[in-house]
Amino acid sequence: MELTNSLRKAVASLDKAKCRRELGWFKAEGTKCVLDTIAHFDVVALLATDAWLSSHRLDIAPECVVKVTRADMDRMTHLSTAPEVIAVYRIPDSRLSADSLRHGLTLALDGVQDPGNLGTIIRCADWFGIDNIICSHDTVDLYNPKVVMSTMGAISRVRVHYCDLPAMLEALGDIPVYGTFLNGSNIYASSLPACAVVVMGNEGKGISPEVERVINRRITIPSFRGGDDGSESLNVAMATAIVISEFKRSNSYGKN
Amino acid sequence: MELTNSLRKAVASLDKAKCRRELGWFKAEGTKCVLDTIAHFDVVALLATDAWLSSHRLDIAPECVVKVTRADMDRMTHLSTAPEVIAVYRIPDSRLSADSLRHGLTLALDGVQDPGNLGTIIRCADWFGIDNIICSHDTVDLYNPKVVMSTMGAISRVRVHYCDLPAMLEALGDIPVYGTFLNGSNIYASSLPACAVVVMGNEGKGISPEVERVINRRITIPSFRGGDDGSESLNVAMATAIVISEFKRSNSYGKN
Repeated sequence: MELTNSLRKAVASLDKAKCRRELGWFKAEGTKCVLDTIAHFDVVALLATDAWLSSHRLDIAPECVVKVTRADMDRMTHLSTAPEVIAVYRIPDSRLSADSLRHGLTLALDGVQDPGNLGTIIRCADWFGIDNIICSHDTVDLYNPKVVMSTMGAISRVRVHYCDLPAMLEALGDIPVYGTFLNGSNIYASSLPACAVVVMGNEGKGISPEVERVINRRITIPSFRGGDDGSESLNVAMATAIVISEFKRSNSYGKN
Repeated sequence: MELTNSLRKAVASLDKAKCRRELGWFKAEGTKCVLDTIAHFDVVALLATDAWLSSHRLDIAPECVVKVTRADMDRMTHLSTAPEVIAVYRIPDSRLSADSLRHGLTLALDGVQDPGNLGTIIRCADWFGIDNIICSHDTVDLYNPKVVMSTMGAISRVRVHYCDLPAMLEALGDIPVYGTFLNGSNIYASSLPACAVVVMGNEGKGISPEVERVINRRITIPSFRGGDDGSESLNVAMATAIVISEFKRSNSYGKN
């Protein structure tokens, strides 16, 4: 395939959520990110420099491979240093029934905004064997190139669904829905079930009132810094790591 | 104080570690970062727009206050959107004896490179009441403006020391030194002491051979994703959060 002007513009436009939706495509940038994902998604195009193509052998249909110059790369990437390779994939269908959340732990994100936070949260969910993450519509888009990159390949293993979060949580019926709040019960002193949904909120505003209404278990990570002069909060990705770790630990390794 | 050319250039130069060392200064950028830190450091200069100064009252010597335009701000910041205020502080003296590490938990960082990772690690250490972090000389500089900003004020409470890390760890004598490795003991099944040093390694390379030699307890955060197809590792900041949480939980809330 040739690099036409319209293809170059389309690839560059994939930095924007609106263009990703219209085209139904997303991109992975850089060698590590491409190699971590290429076997798991439907390839629209693989754009790479001559040097990259001659040092990497991939099982890709030749008509999908596009040779590009460094200068072209520069015009198609959000990275400050142009990568040697960009893969463009079709956005996969993603449907979810409440039933698939009736086993094990599910993470719910209510308005997480930072792409790096979403990426590392997905990576962490993958590590702890969480299969599904459900997100409010105002959570940062999974296919933002910065999110794709920061998942370090976990995007191909964890399913991330966008939905009307309060409605989805309500549809869960008797599955307990946990949320982290400053005035919740101490997570270290709580008995945590193996099957549950854990909601994490926005970086600045926390959990929204609409979602808070459907949460039935309030927990907190206690601060160990005495007085009022400690950190006001943990970063949402760090808090997610601690909460998931504690759910998994207490269910698998119990009383130690 | 007036904004001279040389002051403007000096403030801009504080993005670079070498210039920070030469001047003995560092900077905090943006309202939140400045308000979180200004009471805790020795102010060299507070540079702000007219609008910012008229809406904020701070207890600063008038000769330290410098009125600047938005255009000047643009030339002094690393941020893509110029902040309304920049504070320049004197870098405080930092000395540490091995004795001060003989109580409680200490974190040691061996070559952590990403400013955002160091910042959120400091914030997390603050939350869990850790007073000291010791860093190898090749760890990213604490006074990098991105680190300062991402600590969210915790930089004024947690002491961060740079040292010859293997020598410092060796000087600790009988204090156990923990390190995270893929082949360590399961942290959830280990008995963790209240007084210890925990070493976290570089984002890509992990713990260096020189530091590994002085580690006497090897631990791991087990993956819950079966088979070989899971995430290869957790982000170092996420792993730090989980490890610190587990040390603190098991010592404070014990067997639950």
